[in-house]
Amino acid sequence: MTPGISANSVGVVTAEKILIETPLTLACGVVLPSHELMVETYGTLNADKSNALLICHALSGSHHAAGVYAEGEKPGWWDAYIGPGKAMDTDRFFIVSLNNIGSCFGSTGPTTINPQSGKPWGADFPVLRARDWVESQRLLMEHLEIQQWAAVIGGSLGGMQAMRWALEHPDKLANSIVIASSMKLTAQNIAFNELARRAIQSDPDFYAGDYLDNNTAPRRGLALARMIGHVTYLSDELMGQKFGRELRSGTFTQGEAAPIEFQIESYLNYQGEKFSGDFDANAYILITKMLDYFDLSREYQNDPVQAFSHANCDFLVVSFSSDWRFSPQRSREITDALIAAGKNVSFAEIDSDQGHDAFLLPNPRYEQVLGNYLSRVADKLEGAA
Amino acid sequence: MTPGISANSVGVVTAEKILIETPLTLACGVVLPSHELMVETYGTLNADKSNALLICHALSGSHHAAGVYAEGEKPGWWDAYIGPGKAMDTDRFFIVSLNNIGSCFGSTGPTTINPQSGKPWGADFPVLRARDWVESQRLLMEHLEIQQWAAVIGGSLGGMQAMRWALEHPDKLANSIVIASSMKLTAQNIAFNELARRAIQSDPDFYAGDYLDNNTAPRRGLALARMIGHVTYLSDELMGQKFGRELRSGTFTQGEAAPIEFQIESYLNYQGEKFSGDFDANAYILITKMLDYFDLSREYQNDPVQAFSHANCDFLVVSFSSDWRFSPQRSREITDALIAAGKNVSFAEIDSDQGHDAFLLPNPRYEQVLGNYLSRVADKLEGAA
Repeated sequence: MTPGISANSVGVVTAEKILIETPLTLACGVVLPSHELMVETYGTLNADKSNALLICHALSGSHHAAGVYAEGEKPGWWDAYIGPGKAMDTDRFFIVSLNNIGSCFGSTGPTTINPQSGKPWGADFPVLRARDWVESQRLLMEHLEIQQWAAVIGGSLGGMQAMRWALEHPDKLANSIVIASSMKLTAQNIAFNELARRAIQSDPDFYAGDYLDNNTAPRRGLALARMIGHVTYLSDELMGQKFGRELRSGTFTQGEAAPIEFQIESYLNYQGEKFSGDFDANAYILITKMLDYFDLSREYQNDPVQAFSHANCDFLVVSFSSDWRFSPQRSREITDALIAAGKNVSFAEIDSDQGHDAFLLPNPRYEQVLGNYLSRVADKLEGAA
Repeated sequence: MTPGISANSVGVVTAEKILIETPLTLACGVVLPSHELMVETYGTLNADKSNALLICHALSGSHHAAGVYAEGEKPGWWDAYIGPGKAMDTDRFFIVSLNNIGSCFGSTGPTTINPQSGKPWGADFPVLRARDWVESQRLLMEHLEIQQWAAVIGGSLGGMQAMRWALEHPDKLANSIVIASSMKLTAQNIAFNELARRAIQSDPDFYAGDYLDNNTAPRRGLALARMIGHVTYLSDELMGQKFGRELRSGTFTQGEAAPIEFQIESYLNYQGEKFSGDFDANAYILITKMLDYFDLSREYQNDPVQAFSHANCDFLVVSFSSDWRFSPQRSREITDALIAAGKNVSFAEIDSDQGHDAFLLPNPRYEQVLGNYLSRVADKLEGAA
């Protein structure tokens, strides 16, 4: 095992840009005559194309979920859970991971060219709903000639897509795996998203979203937006353990005049700076709005039981004890509604001090819960084949 | 009872600017040869000057704690608790409320003139610690010829001052009332303060703190800083009750293209805008840093029991169930340390859905706890007189 590529890694992967030529009608009414998706796949599609697993990313995710682009590079964002023998076992599943439209890692979005104007979409990219991502994923599914996903899986906004899939296309997935998610955001969640958007929009380099035309980017605003998110994705306990009140430099003595900085401050500043070079501000605004708008049962008389009665698949719902942005209570609400709708649902609340970020991080109990569930899914598929 | 001035209001009040001519040596080593304090008092000082109660404000507070400047105007920030027959009973106590140095409501601070330069202090105002506020309050006490406070009382940063008083000047107060406070901030609290500072410092109108020289102010940054604070001072439950997912305008229909705004968003934007016209950005930075630096027992081998062993007064500690910035756990830690140090301490955790802001808001149980405690303090004073 080398540090770059271990025995249970999917190894070196390459992304493919797929052109979806079927027009995509968005919830807002705008039609994209065609769109492009950056896609990675891991594992092998079986003969009857029944072992495909769709990964839905969250706010800042990309198609690069597992493996590395070259030896020694940083692995994909869900690498701890994807690979031979891992929870999402590439020896048994064919895993499809895409960058969704409106994001900024190569798929059609604010940073790609609007064919009508010949310029980047920028702030003109149409308002998106989670259902638009699901519809685009369905077109990708058609393109891949897959009839049914063995499972659709995602954390946070990814879990919202997994639930939406179950309602919109009940026969196109066998399992929906909903991790650290919610049927709708709370007012506090919306408030944190609004603070992030406000941080971006207050940056003078934002130019009302037309920063690309001005050859700049609202990096300070985006960094602050990310810092706000980051603080709320971590738990108070974990921040205490990781940083406590440790100083980056200096001491607290009488007569101290120099500015004093706590480690947590420099950590956040570093995270913010880093993100602001990797992500697009318009995409951040677009996708946080998508999170805010998501409301699973709005068109089902606000009744989640009625909503889930349309589902046909089995469910696994997972939450993390210290997650206060998408608290275990939200997952219990999903589970309760599924039970009341008569669906098969497994629910696990995982002990973790990692806050909302826990769904991305190694955790033996979480690996076990996810691995056991998917192992039973694979057993069933392989038994049927 | 008119809405402007009710029977249990202290009525129309005026603030007085008091010049403290004794030099004040700050913890950072800087000496202020003199300083000015804006002060309001309510009630009457008794003959032996034993019934004085000192109010310590928090981050954004002022000297205007009770009454109105004119009929119909907004009452002071703690008006619910100060007045004839109220918890802080002006029929029995002489209440002293000041604007602390480094703040921006008329006391010496970033917006007042630095005599050495002839210009506003701005970003050059010296770094402050809570102990500096206590020392300035002690000089005010001398000026008022008061020997001992019947009680020193404050919420949040105000509670930190009330605790610092007990350690620094054990014989100068009979009671310390510590509300919704903490012996030191958690890493998460420091992180939220850093986000607020970063919001201010990212505003191009900040000019590294020299905005007054540039005839401007970082209003957008300060508004965002306040919004960040505001979200964290409210509880998730309360925000859900107050705003839920109500839209300010528009509906969620298919084909919706117009931007949609939730009520919570317009509420926060309003609060931010309002605050940015009332407060000074340098003062906000200075006082959030003071909060971060506060650490009750740093110079007592980090042992709060050892720290509190220096105290001589009785204590009342109050927390609120839904306060997650200064959680009940923090107040329990204070109480436990006081008990271990052999001090008289009463502790009440008040049921409230108002988050950290609860310490400012009407609440019958809180009124009762505070009123009963102070009533016993007054009984003792009046018995002794």
